[in-house]
Amino acid sequence: MTARNMITATQWWQTALVRIQPGEIALRGYPIEQLIGEISFPQAIWLLLRGELPTPAQAKLLEAALVAAVDHGPQAPSIAAARMAATCGVGLNNAVATGVNLLGDVHGGAGQQAMSMLRDLRDSDLPLPKAIEEYRRWHRFLPGFGHRFHPRDPRRDPLLRLVAEAVEEGVVSGEYLVIALEVEHAIAPVPMNIDGATAVIYAELGFPPELARGLFVLSRSVGILAHAWEEQQSGARIKGPIPRPLLADYTGPALRDLHDGRKPQP
Amino acid sequence: MTARNMITATQWWQTALVRIQPGEIALRGYPIEQLIGEISFPQAIWLLLRGELPTPAQAKLLEAALVAAVDHGPQAPSIAAARMAATCGVGLNNAVATGVNLLGDVHGGAGQQAMSMLRDLRDSDLPLPKAIEEYRRWHRFLPGFGHRFHPRDPRRDPLLRLVAEAVEEGVVSGEYLVIALEVEHAIAPVPMNIDGATAVIYAELGFPPELARGLFVLSRSVGILAHAWEEQQSGARIKGPIPRPLLADYTGPALRDLHDGRKPQP
Amino acid sequence: MTARNMITATQWWQTALVRIQPGEIALRGYPIEQLIGEISFPQAIWLLLRGELPTPAQAKLLEAALVAAVDHGPQAPSIAAARMAATCGVGLNNAVATGVNLLGDVHGGAGQQAMSMLRDLRDSDLPLPKAIEEYRRWHRFLPGFGHRFHPRDPRRDPLLRLVAEAVEEGVVSGEYLVIALEVEHAIAPVPMNIDGATAVIYAELGFPPELARGLFVLSRSVGILAHAWEEQQSGARIKGPIPRPLLADYTGPALRDLHDGRKPQP
Amino acid sequence: MTARNMITATQWWQTALVRIQPGEIALRGYPIEQLIGEISFPQAIWLLLRGELPTPAQAKLLEAALVAAVDHGPQAPSIAAARMAATCGVGLNNAVATGVNLLGDVHGGAGQQAMSMLRDLRDSDLPLPKAIEEYRRWHRFLPGFGHRFHPRDPRRDPLLRLVAEAVEEGVVSGEYLVIALEVEHAIAPVPMNIDGATAVIYAELGFPPELARGLFVLSRSVGILAHAWEEQQSGARIKGPIPRPLLADYTGPALRDLHDGRKPQP
Repeated sequence: MTARNMITATQWWQTALVRIQPGEIALRGYPIEQLIGEISFPQAIWLLLRGELPTPAQAKLLEAALVAAVDHGPQAPSIAAARMAATCGVGLNNAVATGVNLLGDVHGGAGQQAMSMLRDLRDSDLPLPKAIEEYRRWHRFLPGFGHRFHPRDPRRDPLLRLVAEAVEEGVVSGEYLVIALEVEHAIAPVPMNIDGATAVIYAELGFPPELARGLFVLSRSVGILAHAWEEQQSGARIKGPIPRPLLADYTGPALRDLHDGRKPQP
Repeated sequence: MTARNMITATQWWQTALVRIQPGEIALRGYPIEQLIGEISFPQAIWLLLRGELPTPAQAKLLEAALVAAVDHGPQAPSIAAARMAATCGVGLNNAVATGVNLLGDVHGGAGQQAMSMLRDLRDSDLPLPKAIEEYRRWHRFLPGFGHRFHPRDPRRDPLLRLVAEAVEEGVVSGEYLVIALEVEHAIAPVPMNIDGATAVIYAELGFPPELARGLFVLSRSVGILAHAWEEQQSGARIKGPIPRPLLADYTGPALRDLHDGRKPQP
Repeated sequence: MTARNMITATQWWQTALVRIQPGEIALRGYPIEQLIGEISFPQAIWLLLRGELPTPAQAKLLEAALVAAVDHGPQAPSIAAARMAATCGVGLNNAVATGVNLLGDVHGGAGQQAMSMLRDLRDSDLPLPKAIEEYRRWHRFLPGFGHRFHPRDPRRDPLLRLVAEAVEEGVVSGEYLVIALEVEHAIAPVPMNIDGATAVIYAELGFPPELARGLFVLSRSVGILAHAWEEQQSGARIKGPIPRPLLADYTGPALRDLHDGRKPQP
Repeated sequence: MTARNMITATQWWQTALVRIQPGEIALRGYPIEQLIGEISFPQAIWLLLRGELPTPAQAKLLEAALVAAVDHGPQAPSIAAARMAATCGVGLNNAVATGVNLLGDVHGGAGQQAMSMLRDLRDSDLPLPKAIEEYRRWHRFLPGFGHRFHPRDPRRDPLLRLVAEAVEEGVVSGEYLVIALEVEHAIAPVPMNIDGATAVIYAELGFPPELARGLFVLSRSVGILAHAWEEQQSGARIKGPIPRPLLADYTGPALRDLHDGRKPQP
């Protein structure tokens, strides 16, 4: 490759997140050496995403939400895909990326959708019970409630208890907690699930709905990594999701011959 | 790992695409040994996606569209990201996957959006010129027309010429070609681009709009692979997109001290 | 975002693949408008990867290899992961990228490893049967031979027949075919599989081993796309690889209490 | 899609990480409701990866390492690729996955390589200075030392200070710190960088080298997410890494004509 002559700089990315000079790294203005050993990992997450440090009480609430969603086993497609990747001879980061790539609107978007619903209900002109009724008329599913697998999501109670405590201590207002509990009451006996409970937390803490997905990604990445690592250590090779002779129901055409005449597109 | 006892099968995936038995592979019913050396790569693509083989004329039109979109150089984010990945010590497949992952709604979706527009215009009750006028009232950009870089996309003319020939030979109806040319006339002097021209082809050939994105992925994967390979062969290491001292405009807060008091979230 | 002042250009990527000027796109020097409708998709692939156009006979052999490997059903992790992604609300390109990301050393690397083996055997000073014996002493598995599922891979015969014809026509030398058949003879009754057969083709055509993986990616992307599309069309949501209550054997610790004393790391 | 008859269960994945029953989620045996609000995010990470909870002192050291590596700006390919993805209309999780996919051997592997080096030096029969000399004879670069951009990595001092404190408090043995400092002394004036300092921490805490990469992934995912989010919020569309007219140095063949005779492969 030939030598390059760099004449001037072209600034293309603009960022307020990090300032880097030779010998210096500052996150949102704070020199990194002031932060290492001084702030927690959730505080660092909040700082980068929001621009300022959270109070310790805010950070603890965020931390509880992050801890709650770290893993749900190989029934989750993100976990299963990462385990499969780990048997395919790709790097650990590639296995994690594979799992994270699956946290899309359907698998990873419920928290975001739940936050949007809470916000819509909060902004509605109607009294809350009527707003909920109206919402149910237009939406088949209420995101953040019920669960395919758990009659009652074991993560709901501890998370909502923490929110209630935070309301008592004046850390958050509780306006979203109230709304979510009212929804839960209206659709009883279907309880809130992990997405609904973390949506309440993220909304109370002032995060925009889209970041609910991002925070779920950071949380679930832990379980994705752990599962990929476990599968890699087991030494399995080329594991599809299920033993091969058992895999697919074939619903296609019967065997046919290419030279019996190719039928053009109807 | 302990032994596994498999008692019965669970059919979970249902597919009409491929039937696999020990010693047998059939694609849409055709034994693979009948297809190898007998059908072209575009014919195989059509067969898997559509269920039947195309006529040779149909296959040639598809092939032209696939060839046309294979590459557009490192200015395309998909190409650049794949080149960067290739310098980061990941496998060639991971570099390709990185590039393909970027062919989203904005970067890879124009063909799909152009097809949807052609379909909307075809299905409109209004006469075509009025339908186009109406469409322009509601949409800021017309997908498939104009280009950031090319005053006139060099791929437009050869592609549309092939469609015109196919119309003359009765291979396709030409209804979408007519609509697209009418749009081009209405917004002159902005010409059709690669996405518009391939949208015409895919629409004439009966593909649904969403598959325009899929076909663009298959086409652009060729350039993505070639660029990743070229960068890998060059021996470069950890190349960001641009020389480091030149990269980012910093727009964040001035340096500040952690212990001057942490300001809580406003 | 503030305006940018671009003072000069910084050339960072160097490429011989494509030259782009306003109104012009040239692949390896050929204006794109000369290629559209004139060369086949496999010829375009060869041109970008190798720098020159192949002869029609060379292109046909490449095409046969590409067609042969397009799909192997949901038992392949790449296919299964893409199907799962398609149920998770990500774009079609993201589902394809997910599948391609799994074509790593183990799942997608056999062709490359087979080519390397053929090359090592060709370059050995020992007579071929002894070189094969020596190779078997150092390597547990011979890549390109045998198959988890097929007693005899149905893709072997048609592919090797095409190579033999190409040898007769003087298109390729046949040196790798001879070596591969000798290996197959030495380890009988284990036959060559798709990776071995395509490795012979790619080696005869002069591709480096690493590009065997890249070509397999281009080929398998077709099946990955088709399966992702089929699953998306089926309307399934959040499909893990297997019904949830059936998924994982739990081999971890019995239930325990956090407050019975946290045991530090041994 | 037809109904499925599930006759029995097939256990395919085996995991010790999480046990899930209806209404129950246990991580390494601990019911999730005991962990939420009770353990920190780094403690949860350690629990899933290692099987037991760390002591608070161990958790703090891990936390410092995670905080230290969260971001290094758009000069890092992982950050730049994620920013590009965010302009391409893909979901936030897809942008993060894109960035994480680039944390391969070269970009993300230095911590793992540094840990392996520390382990090799520890296990060597030679006295440490001679072992280092021997290592330098066989390896061109010492992973974990020096930095492209920083004459002195500002993350080194605070991290090593924390390790020294942990040694004094008997939390870790200090054997890897000693080795790393001896290496730094031997190659002075090249100081340890972030990868070397975190390698010391992870080694002291008993993590295997491969997990250094995984932990770097969890840490850097925070910056990747924040940058993708920032770019998404800026409203930019299809941003390649650099303004288009400035991008590539073309080093390929001069313009040529397809019909001047196609030259076969030499």
